[in-house]
Amino acid sequence: MKKLLDALRQIVGATHVLSEGDLSAWELDWRKRSRGKALAVVRPRTTAEVAAVVKICVEAGISLVPQGGNTGLVGGSTPDESGRQIVLSLQRMNAVRAIDAANLTMTVEAGCILQTLQESAEKAGFLFPLSLAAEGSCTIGGNLGSNAGGTQVVRYGNARDLCLGLEVVTAQGEVWEGLSGLRKDNTGYDLRDLFIGSEGTLGIITAATMKLYPMPAAQLTAWAAVPSIDEAVTLLGLAHRHLGAGLTGFEVMGQFALSLVAQHFPQQRVPLYLDTPYCVLLENSDHESESHAREQFERLLEIAMEEGCVTDAVVAENLQQAHQLWHVRESIPLAQAEEGLNIKHDISVPVSLIPEFVRVTDQLLANNIPGVRLVNFGHLGDGNLHYNVQAPAGGDAATFLREQEENVNAIVYDSVQKFGGSISAEHGVGSLKVGKLEKHKSPVALGMMRAIKQALDPQNLMNPGRVLRA
Amino acid sequence: MKKLLDALRQIVGATHVLSEGDLSAWELDWRKRSRGKALAVVRPRTTAEVAAVVKICVEAGISLVPQGGNTGLVGGSTPDESGRQIVLSLQRMNAVRAIDAANLTMTVEAGCILQTLQESAEKAGFLFPLSLAAEGSCTIGGNLGSNAGGTQVVRYGNARDLCLGLEVVTAQGEVWEGLSGLRKDNTGYDLRDLFIGSEGTLGIITAATMKLYPMPAAQLTAWAAVPSIDEAVTLLGLAHRHLGAGLTGFEVMGQFALSLVAQHFPQQRVPLYLDTPYCVLLENSDHESESHAREQFERLLEIAMEEGCVTDAVVAENLQQAHQLWHVRESIPLAQAEEGLNIKHDISVPVSLIPEFVRVTDQLLANNIPGVRLVNFGHLGDGNLHYNVQAPAGGDAATFLREQEENVNAIVYDSVQKFGGSISAEHGVGSLKVGKLEKHKSPVALGMMRAIKQALDPQNLMNPGRVLRA
Repeated sequence: MKKLLDALRQIVGATHVLSEGDLSAWELDWRKRSRGKALAVVRPRTTAEVAAVVKICVEAGISLVPQGGNTGLVGGSTPDESGRQIVLSLQRMNAVRAIDAANLTMTVEAGCILQTLQESAEKAGFLFPLSLAAEGSCTIGGNLGSNAGGTQVVRYGNARDLCLGLEVVTAQGEVWEGLSGLRKDNTGYDLRDLFIGSEGTLGIITAATMKLYPMPAAQLTAWAAVPSIDEAVTLLGLAHRHLGAGLTGFEVMGQFALSLVAQHFPQQRVPLYLDTPYCVLLENSDHESESHAREQFERLLEIAMEEGCVTDAVVAENLQQAHQLWHVRESIPLAQAEEGLNIKHDISVPVSLIPEFVRVTDQLLANNIPGVRLVNFGHLGDGNLHYNVQAPAGGDAATFLREQEENVNAIVYDSVQKFGGSISAEHGVGSLKVGKLEKHKSPVALGMMRAIKQALDPQNLMNPGRVLRA
Repeated sequence: MKKLLDALRQIVGATHVLSEGDLSAWELDWRKRSRGKALAVVRPRTTAEVAAVVKICVEAGISLVPQGGNTGLVGGSTPDESGRQIVLSLQRMNAVRAIDAANLTMTVEAGCILQTLQESAEKAGFLFPLSLAAEGSCTIGGNLGSNAGGTQVVRYGNARDLCLGLEVVTAQGEVWEGLSGLRKDNTGYDLRDLFIGSEGTLGIITAATMKLYPMPAAQLTAWAAVPSIDEAVTLLGLAHRHLGAGLTGFEVMGQFALSLVAQHFPQQRVPLYLDTPYCVLLENSDHESESHAREQFERLLEIAMEEGCVTDAVVAENLQQAHQLWHVRESIPLAQAEEGLNIKHDISVPVSLIPEFVRVTDQLLANNIPGVRLVNFGHLGDGNLHYNVQAPAGGDAATFLREQEENVNAIVYDSVQKFGGSISAEHGVGSLKVGKLEKHKSPVALGMMRAIKQALDPQNLMNPGRVLRA
């Protein structure tokens, strides 16, 4: 191993091969559920360095775990406990290589922080719409590796939909120069989308060309109380019809989820509408003007009230109020944590089936665990719920987690499968859900995935054991 | 072979295995450039029948050429001349299986005509935006197999971007039930996008779940004269900024292309603006109202005139006028044909590089072939030009094609490559561009494509020789 480490030092410089001291920033996952042990953390600065690192690791039969901001939620970017894996950190590859205004594109290195993309785009007069809670520390390489979702998917799609091209170091240490500002290119198989969402198991994304959008003239936020989750779905349909592509956010939040925010963060003044089971946060982006956006929004809410799918609503008066409303939505996970550990899910079903899914699954859980509490919220516009399960009031959260996690997961995922849904809507598979994927994914699909993995990474050295069992 | 044909008759019924008489509807490609000879044309009605057909063909070592409307432009859906390939026609699988209004999706079989999708969507109150010249006879399976583009890509993307899930019969005759109405699903490799655009070389798409959009309240069309192609790109930027997602079409047409329409179809009253080298057709779709759309459009054109990137413009007064303008644009290929055979290209480069690409390539061709005439038009909003090359005035078109095609292709494709572009933007590779792909695509990408083909279709029986050399 000393020989390998020396060779790595030759490539990236001695200070960028870390093998001693506290490496927990790279070895411990974001949710602090698994701590691995790396042979070393290697921090290349260029694509050529990444390629050279891969080549000598492949020669030595040493596997690589690519890592961006290490903010993933499924244990996909930390090493296993063997002490024989290299963590390949892309953090030093953080340049914005180019912004092409007329082409509406931006080429960035994999280690670029998501927020840097947003800010660089804004400076150039454009919007880069990908937005999620970890945006201050996650990297675009990780976003692409996991096909991150977030809050703007209803209009702009997932990370996949925002990417036009990739630069990738293959499992053989070759460089695929697939960066492209092309919106149309039908010259063979879609390698780009194969690497996006492959969680570093097929190769290493080193750079990407991403789409930019014109900066909207105004972004307004509204908060609406709805009498049921069925009516939330009706409201979504109205919003699509009346706001068109202006609808850039549509989040649903259950009353219990909101009450946790109100209880643990009383300074936030949560608009609770206590008599309604759900609230919806809507965002309307307008290329024309703020007054036009407001007029459109008010018209929508008026129609929705007439049709009975909204009982009360408010449109934020200014940016500060808008931030406040988004802040409430984003505080739900933190409020949950204050209330104690809980069992998290990141599931999706077709939007039309959300109400029935929630009714059926709520009931199954209530029957199975009397008094269980459901922290239900998420991106309803995309059919994506963070359908989280909390111990009964007064119960011990740690005990609940230990005793009930497998049981609750089984109930929720079986229900998801019955409704034609996904057990991982936006977080990916990582190491956390490998076993569950085997249970819930079609064997034909798994067979094709294995064949592709074998074809592109025959030695199984690229993030082994993630997505597919090693 | 008799045994195989009998077995096929057992599966799909004797009347749906055609092996005698005039089979040119299936054996001759749309552009009439290649006529193949099929062992038989097999027309299954169900996915199970497709799977059974594939299974016995695989057993017999007989290859399959899947075919939809047979409107492809690159010889991808007709058999070779061996008389040993089965044409698998999906035309009888033409059901609209379901429309899910709340989920904004539509599930259709592969043989559904594109226009049927558009009409079924409209009947349900929605828009299915994929639109292209062959929409009256092409099928959605073929659209997905070739990742078709068309005129609405600037807003809605290619066929790929409109698809949420697929049902596929694999090269082993298994059925992958990948139909999905999910907008977020991160459970492993993106098999959907791998099959889309693979031109039937990895398996056979039998059904798809497609996205629907709210029907716009109004669609307006404008025609603008621009003083140069550089200014057309400037106009595109202004249109993105001022119309936002309302910009659903942006086509550019060179003066010579338009003059051919005027000459060969004088009844069309082409708005020529003879003193300008290019005209642009813009479409603005509005979810609010026609008057709002018109106001937005007029504001844009006013600004564009002030900035000097438009010299003259007209907004269609009514739907009939709008159709008339689109008709002029769509008549360019027909007018070219009237003028005589020409050398066609379907290329893309980044939008920002279009003006320089056109200048450089025009000059190269003019130097190489004095008097050569360029029929330049296309989807500028996507950086996609149909950069076609016509014989010098008075020259014999057939001779020109015979003598100059290879030379002209080499000049154009080398130039495309220098500008980081694609030699097939929206038509695919088929058999026509297999050799050219080998020359212009990165060897690393080709290597990965071959590995994937080998992994999923190890016997090379799925549309062999298309995309990749057999």
